[in-house]
Amino acid sequence: MLTLFGTLDSGNVYKAQLILARVGADYRRVDVAQTRNEPRDPRFLAVNPMGKVPVVLREDGHVISESGAILYHFAGSSDLWSKDRDTTTEILRWMFFEQYSHEPALAVMRYLRHFTDHPDRHAGRFAELEPQARRALGVMESRLSGHDWLAAEGCTIADFALYPYTHTAGSVGFDVSRFPGIERWLERVESQPRFVPFGYEGAVETLSFAEYFGSEPEE
Amino acid sequence: MLTLFGTLDSGNVYKAQLILARVGADYRRVDVAQTRNEPRDPRFLAVNPMGKVPVVLREDGHVISESGAILYHFAGSSDLWSKDRDTTTEILRWMFFEQYSHEPALAVMRYLRHFTDHPDRHAGRFAELEPQARRALGVMESRLSGHDWLAAEGCTIADFALYPYTHTAGSVGFDVSRFPGIERWLERVESQPRFVPFGYEGAVETLSFAEYFGSEPEE
Repeated sequence: MLTLFGTLDSGNVYKAQLILARVGADYRRVDVAQTRNEPRDPRFLAVNPMGKVPVVLREDGHVISESGAILYHFAGSSDLWSKDRDTTTEILRWMFFEQYSHEPALAVMRYLRHFTDHPDRHAGRFAELEPQARRALGVMESRLSGHDWLAAEGCTIADFALYPYTHTAGSVGFDVSRFPGIERWLERVESQPRFVPFGYEGAVETLSFAEYFGSEPEE
Repeated sequence: MLTLFGTLDSGNVYKAQLILARVGADYRRVDVAQTRNEPRDPRFLAVNPMGKVPVVLREDGHVISESGAILYHFAGSSDLWSKDRDTTTEILRWMFFEQYSHEPALAVMRYLRHFTDHPDRHAGRFAELEPQARRALGVMESRLSGHDWLAAEGCTIADFALYPYTHTAGSVGFDVSRFPGIERWLERVESQPRFVPFGYEGAVETLSFAEYFGSEPEE
C-alpha cells in the first residue's frame, strides 16, 4: 500500500489526495505538518531530503515528492495526461505557473489569514500578495472565460493542480463571482469522477508522526 | 524560425537558451525585460497572458511559456528526458523543486544584490532569503555528493533547470567550494554538448521590444 505524508489542511497535499482518489489507489496517511515543523525533522528528511510534504512512498521504497510530480506520476497514461507533446507541454505550463505565480500568493495569503496567531501583524505582507493573487486569478479567468479546462479540451492534472488554492480564493477575500469562468470551472472540477472535497480523509489508516517514526529521534 | 522573448540576464530565459542550443534550433530573440516592465505590456500579454518571460513562439503560432515547460517541450524524445515514468517523475520533481524552493530564493537574492539601485535597502529581505537558498543548495548537495546528475544516471532537463541559478550562487555570497558535489556538477553541465555560457547571444537575430511590437501600443 502507498503511504502519503502530509496534513489535510494543505492544498499541496490535497492535490495528492485528488489524484490518488481518482485512480482508486489505497493509501495510509502519516500526519506530517508544516505548522509543527515536522518536514524538517531528520527522520522525515531521511524520507524526503527536500523537507516538504506531500510525499508518496511506494511499497518498493520509491519516494515521490513535489505535488506536481505526484500528479504526473499517478496520472500515468490516463486521460488526465496526454500522448500529444503540445498538450502535455501546455499541462506542465499551467502546473509550473501554479507553483511559481499562483500558489505562492494564494497559499501564503491563506496561511497568514487563517494559520497564524495574529493575522493583523501580517497585514502588510498580505496586502503585498493581493495583487499577485489577483493577477494569477486573472490569468486563469482569461483562459476559462472561453474554455472549459485549463490546458486541453478535457480535464487534466493541470486542473487538479490549480483547483486547491483557487477554491480557497474566497476565504482570503476574493469575490469569486467576479471571475465567472473560474466559478464554473470550480464546479466542473468538483463534478469529476471520484472527486473528494478539501479536508476529506481518504486514507484507509492514519498515523501520527510519532506512531510512524517512533517517539525518539534516530539521529 | 522560432522566436524567443526575454533578456540575456534572466536565468529563466537562459534555460530556454540552453535547450534551444542543445537541440540545434535557430531562433531570433526579442529583448523583453522584466526590469522595464515589458512582460506586462498589453502587446506582450497578447502573446503570453501569464505576463512572464521566457516565451518561445513557434512559426505555427503556438506559444510555449514557463521555463520548465520549454525545457520539456524541446527535450522531445532525446536522452534529456526518458521513456521511464519513474525517471521522468524524478526529473519533474527536481524541476518543481527548482521553481518553488530554489529559484525564488537564489534568483531574488541575485536581483536584490545586482539589479536594484540601492541593494543596502533590501538587506533585510536578502538576509531572510539566505537560509532558504542555503537549504536548497544543501538539498542539491545531498544528491550530488553521491551522484553525477540530479534526477537520473545521465544529464536531463532537471540539470538544465537547476544550473542557471545555482551557478550564480557565488555572486550572492555563497562559497561554492563548501558544496563540492555541486561544484563538480556545475563543471559536468558545462561540459555538455553545445553548452552555452550565461549571457551568450545565441540568437541569429535580435530585436528590441519596439522593433518587434511596433513603437505604439495597439490598444
